Amino acid sequence: MKVADVSYRSVWRDGDSIGIVDQTRLPHEFVTRRLSTVEAVAHAITAMQVRGAPLIGAVAAYGLALALRKDSSDSGLSAGVELLMQARPTAVNLRWSLTRMLEHVRPLDPALRVDAAWDEAGRIADEDIELNKSIGRHGLALIRDLAKDKSIVNVLTHCNAGWLATVDYGTALAPIYLAHDEGVPVHVWVDETRPRNQGMLTAWELASHGVPHTLITDNAGGHLMQHGKVDIVIVGADRVTSGGDVCNKIGTYLKALAAKPIRFRFSPQSPARPSIGRSTIRSRKSRLKNAARMKFCSFAV
Amino acid sequence: MKVADVSYRSVWRDGDSIGIVDQTRLPHEFVTRRLSTVEAVAHAITAMQVRGAPLIGAVAAYGLALALRKDSSDSGLSAGVELLMQARPTAVNLRWSLTRMLEHVRPLDPALRVDAAWDEAGRIADEDIELNKSIGRHGLALIRDLAKDKSIVNVLTHCNAGWLATVDYGTALAPIYLAHDEGVPVHVWVDETRPRNQGMLTAWELASHGVPHTLITDNAGGHLMQHGKVDIVIVGADRVTSGGDVCNKIGTYLKALAAKPIRFRFSPQSPARPSIGRSTIRSRKSRLKNAARMKFCSFAV
Repeated sequence: MKVADVSYRSVWRDGDSIGIVDQTRLPHEFVTRRLSTVEAVAHAITAMQVRGAPLIGAVAAYGLALALRKDSSDSGLSAGVELLMQARPTAVNLRWSLTRMLEHVRPLDPALRVDAAWDEAGRIADEDIELNKSIGRHGLALIRDLAKDKSIVNVLTHCNAGWLATVDYGTALAPIYLAHDEGVPVHVWVDETRPRNQGMLTAWELASHGVPHTLITDNAGGHLMQHGKVDIVIVGADRVTSGGDVCNKIGTYLKALAAKPIRFRFSPQSPARPSIGRSTIRSRKSRLKNAARMKFCSFAV
Repeated sequence: MKVADVSYRSVWRDGDSIGIVDQTRLPHEFVTRRLSTVEAVAHAITAMQVRGAPLIGAVAAYGLALALRKDSSDSGLSAGVELLMQARPTAVNLRWSLTRMLEHVRPLDPALRVDAAWDEAGRIADEDIELNKSIGRHGLALIRDLAKDKSIVNVLTHCNAGWLATVDYGTALAPIYLAHDEGVPVHVWVDETRPRNQGMLTAWELASHGVPHTLITDNAGGHLMQHGKVDIVIVGADRVTSGGDVCNKIGTYLKALAAKPIRFRFSPQSPARPSIGRSTIRSRKSRLKNAARMKFCSFAV
């Protein structure tokens, strides 16, 4: 996405190093850093210079290429994987990405491992972007649909599930970027997202790319929904169960509860959907699940 | 309520002056101020050294006594009322209290007005305390009832509706203080209450009086309720309609929506109440109204 009219990814290859956006300096300063060693990459993950599960996965993959550049032997490979795995033991994408890298390069002759690692890390980053664009296209259809009846579509989002949390586009923000880029008028209510204020990152992203938005307190969303100022709620997801239940950043549940009723307020003209909605409500006890299936959209890679 | 084991009101007569707690210094410092002129009182209201509708009403009544001490003529009376009324034009209690004071002292000989004003202001303050105690007794019955089944009753509250917002006891916090003082074990989840962080005042009050509590982000309450960590939600109310609808600080609505389902989770043994609850839900559209009639208690004077 764009920063001062220049397109950026949140991680990129830069010769024999990688570049990242130092997210600990945002929203106050836009600072990029060049990382040339696996130790620097591990530090960037630990210090949260990079954060967001999909981004951490991609950065760790590049980090392994840097580790192999120094020592492409079996022991070098193991040490690199171990160092990176420890950087954020709870991040699922990190484990997934390093396992994929390991399986890809371990069978190869050590002399071939460095180039193979750069290539595979590049593929992981590119695939993340493609996944996000695909989320974006699905969400774009929902936003386009809402835009038929109104001059501007008001989206509410919580936390940061934008390009800073992924390699590009983001998960929850991908539909918003695609809509904005194709000229669908959108305005985003950005939850502050206490206690860590990741809404600041979202607001910074949207401002940098030129998307109209307003930073709000986490308390305000219910009132805005009650008064018809929100057309759709789109958030990221840490996990989605096979049954459709969603886990996400603290506070998402409160927004999901409030998002449920607006569906009925805004869709009385559409006979098909309300009836589906009502039967869903009767048959299921998980309120978040219901919400997630209606106006409340939760996206994860 | 107590501060360092000394009982305080939030406003008191001090000879020919009044004393207040300077709430702009809380929670960092406990500073009391002596106000001797109506101008100082008007400033204290404007600068939010005192805040909370019931307290503003009582402070303004005392302020009028100070105005009359300087000039008890008709013109002195009018000027005092006007100055105080301008200090916070939106506060209903301010208008109510000054109208009552005016009607009480205007018929009197100017020589008698000062003492009458001190007396009436004292009555307004005492009545506020009695009202709050009465709220406290009603709420105490609910908390006692909950305490039958558990070792500790977990209360969630939003904003500050404690003794700092009134003359003493508070509205939403009165039941909590009464419960704590009579030995019912309570623990209070205190919403931070962005954007003005009035939860800090509530946490300070509870700490000063020795009531166990935890300051939480506004986002956390839903999660706590979902996981059975909240037995009752008690909040203040800016307005209550004759139909039972409640207006209160931004964010209250989100907590009310989340509070509704816990009622069913916690009262399955009690056949009478769930059936009342269910029929209420079916027959009414206002979710906040339903919530307010169940586990969600909203108190106003």
